[in-house]
Amino acid sequence: MKIAIIGGVAAGTSAAAKARRENKDAEIILFEKGNNISYAGCGLPYYICDIVPKRENIIINTPQKFAEKYKVNVKIGHEVTEIVPNSRTIKYKNLHNNNKEKYRYDKLIIATGAKPIFPPIPGSDLDNVVTLRTVKDADNIKSILTNQGIGQAVIIGGGLIGLEMAESFHEIGLKVTVVEKAPQLLPPFSKKMAGIVRKHLNDKGVRVIVNDGVSEIQGKEKVEQVLTESGQIIKAGLVLVSIGIRPDTKLAENAGIELGIADAIKINQKMETSIANIYAAGDCCESRNILTGENVWIPLGSTANKQGRTAGGNAAGGNFCHKGILKTGITKIFDLSVARTGLTVDEARDNGYKAETVQIAAGNHAGYYPGREKLNMLGVYDTNTGQILGAEIVGGSGTDKRIDVLSTAIYSKLTVEDLFQLDLAYAPPYSSPKDPVAIMGMVMNK
Amino acid sequence: MKIAIIGGVAAGTSAAAKARRENKDAEIILFEKGNNISYAGCGLPYYICDIVPKRENIIINTPQKFAEKYKVNVKIGHEVTEIVPNSRTIKYKNLHNNNKEKYRYDKLIIATGAKPIFPPIPGSDLDNVVTLRTVKDADNIKSILTNQGIGQAVIIGGGLIGLEMAESFHEIGLKVTVVEKAPQLLPPFSKKMAGIVRKHLNDKGVRVIVNDGVSEIQGKEKVEQVLTESGQIIKAGLVLVSIGIRPDTKLAENAGIELGIADAIKINQKMETSIANIYAAGDCCESRNILTGENVWIPLGSTANKQGRTAGGNAAGGNFCHKGILKTGITKIFDLSVARTGLTVDEARDNGYKAETVQIAAGNHAGYYPGREKLNMLGVYDTNTGQILGAEIVGGSGTDKRIDVLSTAIYSKLTVEDLFQLDLAYAPPYSSPKDPVAIMGMVMNK
Repeated sequence: MKIAIIGGVAAGTSAAAKARRENKDAEIILFEKGNNISYAGCGLPYYICDIVPKRENIIINTPQKFAEKYKVNVKIGHEVTEIVPNSRTIKYKNLHNNNKEKYRYDKLIIATGAKPIFPPIPGSDLDNVVTLRTVKDADNIKSILTNQGIGQAVIIGGGLIGLEMAESFHEIGLKVTVVEKAPQLLPPFSKKMAGIVRKHLNDKGVRVIVNDGVSEIQGKEKVEQVLTESGQIIKAGLVLVSIGIRPDTKLAENAGIELGIADAIKINQKMETSIANIYAAGDCCESRNILTGENVWIPLGSTANKQGRTAGGNAAGGNFCHKGILKTGITKIFDLSVARTGLTVDEARDNGYKAETVQIAAGNHAGYYPGREKLNMLGVYDTNTGQILGAEIVGGSGTDKRIDVLSTAIYSKLTVEDLFQLDLAYAPPYSSPKDPVAIMGMVMNK
Repeated sequence: MKIAIIGGVAAGTSAAAKARRENKDAEIILFEKGNNISYAGCGLPYYICDIVPKRENIIINTPQKFAEKYKVNVKIGHEVTEIVPNSRTIKYKNLHNNNKEKYRYDKLIIATGAKPIFPPIPGSDLDNVVTLRTVKDADNIKSILTNQGIGQAVIIGGGLIGLEMAESFHEIGLKVTVVEKAPQLLPPFSKKMAGIVRKHLNDKGVRVIVNDGVSEIQGKEKVEQVLTESGQIIKAGLVLVSIGIRPDTKLAENAGIELGIADAIKINQKMETSIANIYAAGDCCESRNILTGENVWIPLGSTANKQGRTAGGNAAGGNFCHKGILKTGITKIFDLSVARTGLTVDEARDNGYKAETVQIAAGNHAGYYPGREKLNMLGVYDTNTGQILGAEIVGGSGTDKRIDVLSTAIYSKLTVEDLFQLDLAYAPPYSSPKDPVAIMGMVMNK
């Protein structure tokens, strides 16, 4: 049994590790065109601002350690150039010496990830216009910051990564401006919740411009300033482009593998693609929305991990499935936790639910116990059946707990009545006799 | 419609508030023999050591405020002495002037709570031998500590309250010894988890003696020392007896109301007792175990709140139910959070499950992000069906999140496979790509 894996970050390494646990004897080979595998992509913003002090901290496994631990042939600096399904062959190139070789697989797992979208803005080829996706990108940003005495940064795009990087840059003393083309930050969030985040950023000294795109990045060799569509000029020694990513599926597409939503690789719950013996996992492929049954493309590290494990287990002869996702996500933005799960009210209505929302604010623990912080919560539910469908929380400590309880409740198809009935743990440092989740359930159940 | 409520702490006040919301016009009268209502019993340990600085902080509502807010006739210092179901009458006494009166009710809610068990130990009538249940008890302890320069305290009983008070006394500079008759602290927890707590208490400087009862409390007027069954002598200026509580059901029993487990008032899911038009709620009555369907007696503030709400809503003409509990509980003991939910492995086997346990240790968030703390987790599951049945967690920050996710999973009858599938929120400050709950599910699913 020969298992080949293309891509060595979250999904690829999860696949390799699970394949090995499932099958002691398989030959497992992993191709990674970069020089790092198994790095913590979500940790890069914290590495850049030295909250995570050492580069090695974000490299979960070196190629050597990983190869030894899982008995996997790890080929870094090797780019797969073609998949030939008929002959179960992949062609690859050693990037160090340009040697070309072939490998015949029994099972193939595509985990090629995603890459940043780089907009066709004049001046985006200037020096110090960067993106953040890989350890190499982070090294590049750190080197610019260390060597060039940058004072001002502009971040194009007010999504999760953009706002994490706003905090990161601000922490190391840069004056930061975030420019978002949409009318609000964090488009998957409701206007009200996004507004709370925006105010918090302003309070911390980050300038936020919404409803305004970047029309030109200006400078001689290096970026010097950014011009917006409305005519604002913002000085910048560094511009981070963070307007999104797209699945890296050229290899798959050229091999005739069917693409789905957002041009991500179409998969089923076993992570099988449209071509026999080829699986996909991670940011390059779709996931299934557990609530609606539709395939969606929501690239996240936690999903990549599960999909990789599922693909690796199946490729090695097991029988695993990934039931899907609820678009659960969280990020820390200064003192706020910003989290969501499930459907938005619009998505719910589009899927035939008679959906309404409620908004509440509640303390994260007993009022008399020190350090109480506020949680702003929005819930989406079906008024016919009472089913809980989605939630957003923006607030202090304990935001993550409530979003995970609600994600578990939505996964389990619980109703708003159930939210009151849940036997959640109460003691003054942790909650109130009526947990915020129960309070939200009670308000929905009126 | 005349609704009478006996008892004005968590269940009684929740019942009154919900009855008022359900029925604008009802006459609602609440009898409380003490002088406080609606106080935070779970906050008393924090009030004693000044983490909660002011007495008024733990009085959620004064009688006056509560009476105005909910239009309830609040009679503090009034003791109900008899319930006469046939004539739907209660007899009560004004404790200030000993006047006796009667009240004819349409619906009655018994929320008489529980009281500390005081063991028949010689010397337990000495001064400075105390219990902690009410604000008056807390005032008494604070006054002893303030006025008498106590240096050493013995706590009899190593349950939740005993250990919370060990921390509380230690924080204000007392030398503390906990004496527990059972072979371990925290009897509802497994030996291993209880051992972690014991070690932590030792590390903090609290002396813990297990497998040893108190045979005598010695002193002239005031306690001076405690003698254990094994012959140890422990100096003590204050002894806190914290060996448990029992339901306060004399009134109910005398009225012919059926008692159940642990002599708590027998109830159904509507909180109806065996006698028509009489409800019970809170620490004086049973709850239903959601998993086994059996009635149990697990007195907790969060349950009292829900039961009170259910009883009050039904008494006022609504149709509510309390589905039951999972024995979920949590407490903070110095730097540890100590939490449990669901069945123990023995309870599970007694109920016909083919139950096994797994134990894991996992970090509360990404390894490279600062401040990672360890979670020690024990899970109970059925090896036939994969159903998750119970869990214990002892660890750092994020313990409360995982116990609440697991409580929600158990409530929803999820399997160990589902624990892997849950779409929990991941970002480095909050979790790992594989959350500890998922890891536990994966280990169970092997």
